[in-house]
Amino acid sequence: MNSFGCLFRITTWGESHGGAVGVVVDGCPPRIPITPEEIQQELDRRRPAQSKLVSQRRERDRVYILSGVFEGQTLGTPILMLVWNEDARPEAYEPFKHLYRPSHADYTYQVKYGIRDWRGGGRSSARETVGRVAAGALAKKVLRSLWQVEILGWVEQIHTLRADIAPDTVTQEQVESNPVRCPDPSVAAQMMERIEQVRKQGDSVGGVVRCIARNVPPGWGSPVFDKLEADLAKAMLSIPATKGFEIGSGFRGVAMLGSEHNDSFYTDEQGRIRTRTNFSGGVQGGITNGELIDIRVAFKPTATIFQDQHTVDEWGEPAVLKARGRHDPCVVPRAVPIVEAMMALVLVDHALRHRGQCGG
Amino acid sequence: MNSFGCLFRITTWGESHGGAVGVVVDGCPPRIPITPEEIQQELDRRRPAQSKLVSQRRERDRVYILSGVFEGQTLGTPILMLVWNEDARPEAYEPFKHLYRPSHADYTYQVKYGIRDWRGGGRSSARETVGRVAAGALAKKVLRSLWQVEILGWVEQIHTLRADIAPDTVTQEQVESNPVRCPDPSVAAQMMERIEQVRKQGDSVGGVVRCIARNVPPGWGSPVFDKLEADLAKAMLSIPATKGFEIGSGFRGVAMLGSEHNDSFYTDEQGRIRTRTNFSGGVQGGITNGELIDIRVAFKPTATIFQDQHTVDEWGEPAVLKARGRHDPCVVPRAVPIVEAMMALVLVDHALRHRGQCGG
Amino acid sequence: MNSFGCLFRITTWGESHGGAVGVVVDGCPPRIPITPEEIQQELDRRRPAQSKLVSQRRERDRVYILSGVFEGQTLGTPILMLVWNEDARPEAYEPFKHLYRPSHADYTYQVKYGIRDWRGGGRSSARETVGRVAAGALAKKVLRSLWQVEILGWVEQIHTLRADIAPDTVTQEQVESNPVRCPDPSVAAQMMERIEQVRKQGDSVGGVVRCIARNVPPGWGSPVFDKLEADLAKAMLSIPATKGFEIGSGFRGVAMLGSEHNDSFYTDEQGRIRTRTNFSGGVQGGITNGELIDIRVAFKPTATIFQDQHTVDEWGEPAVLKARGRHDPCVVPRAVPIVEAMMALVLVDHALRHRGQCGG
Amino acid sequence: MNSFGCLFRITTWGESHGGAVGVVVDGCPPRIPITPEEIQQELDRRRPAQSKLVSQRRERDRVYILSGVFEGQTLGTPILMLVWNEDARPEAYEPFKHLYRPSHADYTYQVKYGIRDWRGGGRSSARETVGRVAAGALAKKVLRSLWQVEILGWVEQIHTLRADIAPDTVTQEQVESNPVRCPDPSVAAQMMERIEQVRKQGDSVGGVVRCIARNVPPGWGSPVFDKLEADLAKAMLSIPATKGFEIGSGFRGVAMLGSEHNDSFYTDEQGRIRTRTNFSGGVQGGITNGELIDIRVAFKPTATIFQDQHTVDEWGEPAVLKARGRHDPCVVPRAVPIVEAMMALVLVDHALRHRGQCGG
Repeated sequence: MNSFGCLFRITTWGESHGGAVGVVVDGCPPRIPITPEEIQQELDRRRPAQSKLVSQRRERDRVYILSGVFEGQTLGTPILMLVWNEDARPEAYEPFKHLYRPSHADYTYQVKYGIRDWRGGGRSSARETVGRVAAGALAKKVLRSLWQVEILGWVEQIHTLRADIAPDTVTQEQVESNPVRCPDPSVAAQMMERIEQVRKQGDSVGGVVRCIARNVPPGWGSPVFDKLEADLAKAMLSIPATKGFEIGSGFRGVAMLGSEHNDSFYTDEQGRIRTRTNFSGGVQGGITNGELIDIRVAFKPTATIFQDQHTVDEWGEPAVLKARGRHDPCVVPRAVPIVEAMMALVLVDHALRHRGQCGG
Repeated sequence: MNSFGCLFRITTWGESHGGAVGVVVDGCPPRIPITPEEIQQELDRRRPAQSKLVSQRRERDRVYILSGVFEGQTLGTPILMLVWNEDARPEAYEPFKHLYRPSHADYTYQVKYGIRDWRGGGRSSARETVGRVAAGALAKKVLRSLWQVEILGWVEQIHTLRADIAPDTVTQEQVESNPVRCPDPSVAAQMMERIEQVRKQGDSVGGVVRCIARNVPPGWGSPVFDKLEADLAKAMLSIPATKGFEIGSGFRGVAMLGSEHNDSFYTDEQGRIRTRTNFSGGVQGGITNGELIDIRVAFKPTATIFQDQHTVDEWGEPAVLKARGRHDPCVVPRAVPIVEAMMALVLVDHALRHRGQCGG
Repeated sequence: MNSFGCLFRITTWGESHGGAVGVVVDGCPPRIPITPEEIQQELDRRRPAQSKLVSQRRERDRVYILSGVFEGQTLGTPILMLVWNEDARPEAYEPFKHLYRPSHADYTYQVKYGIRDWRGGGRSSARETVGRVAAGALAKKVLRSLWQVEILGWVEQIHTLRADIAPDTVTQEQVESNPVRCPDPSVAAQMMERIEQVRKQGDSVGGVVRCIARNVPPGWGSPVFDKLEADLAKAMLSIPATKGFEIGSGFRGVAMLGSEHNDSFYTDEQGRIRTRTNFSGGVQGGITNGELIDIRVAFKPTATIFQDQHTVDEWGEPAVLKARGRHDPCVVPRAVPIVEAMMALVLVDHALRHRGQCGG
Repeated sequence: MNSFGCLFRITTWGESHGGAVGVVVDGCPPRIPITPEEIQQELDRRRPAQSKLVSQRRERDRVYILSGVFEGQTLGTPILMLVWNEDARPEAYEPFKHLYRPSHADYTYQVKYGIRDWRGGGRSSARETVGRVAAGALAKKVLRSLWQVEILGWVEQIHTLRADIAPDTVTQEQVESNPVRCPDPSVAAQMMERIEQVRKQGDSVGGVVRCIARNVPPGWGSPVFDKLEADLAKAMLSIPATKGFEIGSGFRGVAMLGSEHNDSFYTDEQGRIRTRTNFSGGVQGGITNGELIDIRVAFKPTATIFQDQHTVDEWGEPAVLKARGRHDPCVVPRAVPIVEAMMALVLVDHALRHRGQCGG
């Protein structure tokens, strides 16, 4: 289904070149102050045509809030947020109408539904994430207002270039200081160069987004299937073009011994129980322990490239796809606000669920 | 919550040293032939004390089916499966009653609920997975009976030792031919040696389980939040001790170019649309494309080790934990049937959901 | 939450005097032909100002479909339908801004959320049902296209006036032949007179809507909590102003003996198993038996009346409410399409669920 | 599905003559003191063979708690409660194995699933409600412990005999003072006589259960589909043999004018906002207003009677059913604890949901 969350539940809707895209947010706590500008700010971080690194589709992506907010505050009722599709140019996709683009979802949608909106990928377009980012902006506001939780993502890797960032001290200003959203300026410069080089070849690259949450109280999450890390994994793998997820030590933890990997407990000066290391990534047994939530998400190289590709058409006949239209040689910088949004949605939902069951 | 799945929904229950552990399976298709022996067979693969590689807790883990099966067939009503806790020795945990074991869930459960069953980790024990494996055995049977889908997992990596296995040709016989469940006999031998060596040091190691599904029809899955890979990621990160998930190219895909990573389509001799490579891992846009489902799951080294560890007690006072009781130096071989079970549960649920919406 | 349904799931949103009201329909089967005109036709039956019997609020209630429909067919992706609030006159409600109108939801919303949109009842307004009727029109189309199921509701009682209608033979033409939607013309005339008389007194009346479904195949529904009649009861009691629900014999069945009430089985000429009577109302044990689904819904008299009423204000001080604004002296005729919509939503959801589990 | 509730969610399982029947309760708040005896007490009120008014099946119905409770308190993890089927006599049902009993669920289960457990109705037996009553006992304990809410049901009508009871003052002692659970002793005597008379004729009768909740805080519930009255209606219509539901004025409200039906607000001596009448039944717009929750549920006469009945067999051939086995000439007195349990489950779920969203 197109919904996410149990108590703070969002439902996104919209095709890339249909009338509009948007989201309904249900279950939001009442009396949270929110303005369209706060939503817009996050959408602007996701928007295409921010820089030449990304797709040149020209969308203002202006958000309209049609319900659920009254005199600047949430009502507790569903919040509908909508963005019109202004720069839809379906004719650009006309030549691919009957072709299956490799590593896109044309074939799988067609085989599942027996019909698809072929204009720009329809529902499978990353344009769907407009609704997630809008909802995520609200989720962030709730988390900040009620629990002082802050979420921060950045680009850790592009292709083979990797930045080593200290999660405890990195700031949003550092992240936003360059278009590639990598807080290490020298690696950022190399990354931009790499993307530009790949763009010229008509090719594409992927990368890794790392995302943390600060000030998360201990006790959020759930023991078994809805472990916080399980819901984060689902949230992240639901983002288009993702292929992997790690929390804490991730795949690197495999090569460690238990005696190295275990996070020892101690009591800090404020009397709070803490761990000396954070290989756990802020969760133990599915429940937060008060340390940084720390995850990584792998994005594959964008499927749209500007090189001829072999494929088949709807009737199974061999065909050659000549790439056209607008695209991102690298989606990863624009994915940062999406990853943050999904983390915010998971956390706010678990915050409300914890309060419901345990009164916290 | 303690439920998983939308139409084929399981609910597990039980603490490690309580009366019993088990599962309710709701929404199973009717008239599927199933015997307790088929369930037992999978439970025996998960059971402790299979070899000296794993925990020496002696549980027969005999399964009882108390409802939902009649004259050897499923009724379509809820199926309750139960395993008694026979070898519960809570007194072994008495010394840790007020200590927080590092990288276990003692602290997080206590802070969340204000109470915990300290006997063997209570609900956070991997013993909870008995219910998953029992339900997964049924899910496998449904998948096999109705759609000829086969699921197969194996150990790909233990600590730094990695086996390179061809997913297209590996067989269950190869996997089960050694206690470490690695189908490459020479790597398996090294792995066993490594585990034994680590056990002698009182330490532990983790590993990677790889799991595939064969014959999955194209069209299963869902476009946005419930992408098949998203539900698989959630399923896998809900297994105790997991820290990472990959589908298809995973984190390795990050270092590839789009022109390398895209899976070209072609039509095979049977007229089926196929892809020449499978970096997508069998899904595109959240929906299966008919290729192998191909995932990897990272398991951290077991938290229980036989070395002194620094920690705190319930009152925040420093303490030293002297390890005792039974444990696994390496859970990864026993995790194989659990990973398979979770994959089966995701697939059968999406099979029913697809049939519901699209009539397939 | 503001969602209804498991596989065919709708989410309504919108306040009476906010930007717009609408619905997202998720899980609709693909390739169902649908036009805005088909949706509009049902909305027109619900719309205010159809006749002087009902509210004089002037809304064209023109529906816009912003997603999920492509070239006249459903895509299988979420369908957003929206109606702008054009004739919003919030100033009419200004005098009641701090008063709790008796038997309205002003007080309960305020106490629950600590905030409310006081303009026309905000979210508690029956204007919310625009989204239900739009979604219901689509649900009806799916039921008709895939299973030839037809749904028909009518007004059986207004105040003390009751019509005795044969459910097997009544037609939509008969129902729509008069503004009160009672298929017995002579009782309809009395009802209209009664409503007019009550309107002149500044008072209001309630009534009973009866609703049937024809051609429902046996086997839809679920045995325990999601019995078809349970989901119908929930659906109906979720409509504003409803106070009671009956299926089949309803409360009258209480005064019958088992020997009178049991529905005997027989086999008809087509070889179908049928029952001679239908006190069960088309369901047995929560599952349809192939007979007419037959329900009744009780609507209380409209809470808005044109008489002075004693109440309190937000600070608990006594106050007198002088009625103003637009209202319905009797909502029951406009409730007919809403009841039909809710029945359609329950049936289509159970149809998909049955197909999912049992392959039907 | 076989689950009920969103945050406090129960799943019942078990067939009438299978191994056992029971329930899993998920999402219960932690640290609620509970003993098996408290659960048993409610089960004993539901149990057969309490008096000659009810079924003579001899079941001790002793409850076992297998998980989720530790040292007398809830852990916050799933609670499995189980009752063995001891007095199962499937052979008594052998003669009906291939017959469809009128107004039972034999035919509908068979047509839905293509298989059924014919022994005593299998899953459709009222024995399923054992799990509901056990879970309801826990729900009552939570409601009492955290919010001082009390729930009380009684028999208001049997066949044509109706008792007029003042809901504000009736006590549990009065209800339990006679086996028919009608707090008016003289009407109770007539009811017992009527049931006995009907039993002698081999016939059966139905009745009405009324149920109230006291001390429910204002603000519980939800505005649209999950209105408190909607969830109550669903809960009640999910009980076997129910045909109708009313809240507050119910169907009687139809014959009232708005000026009579509106519940005027006033402020009482404690400064609480109250209503002078309670035709609303304790809810307005789906949310509690602090008055008594007041509902009625209609039960049809028991389908099992001791008279010959015409029916068909599995192949559609005419047959005569000769009644045998154990049965209730009137289920209504035993239904009282079931209705109370379902009301408790609805209330506790909404209490947690309200606390989750609004922090109350």
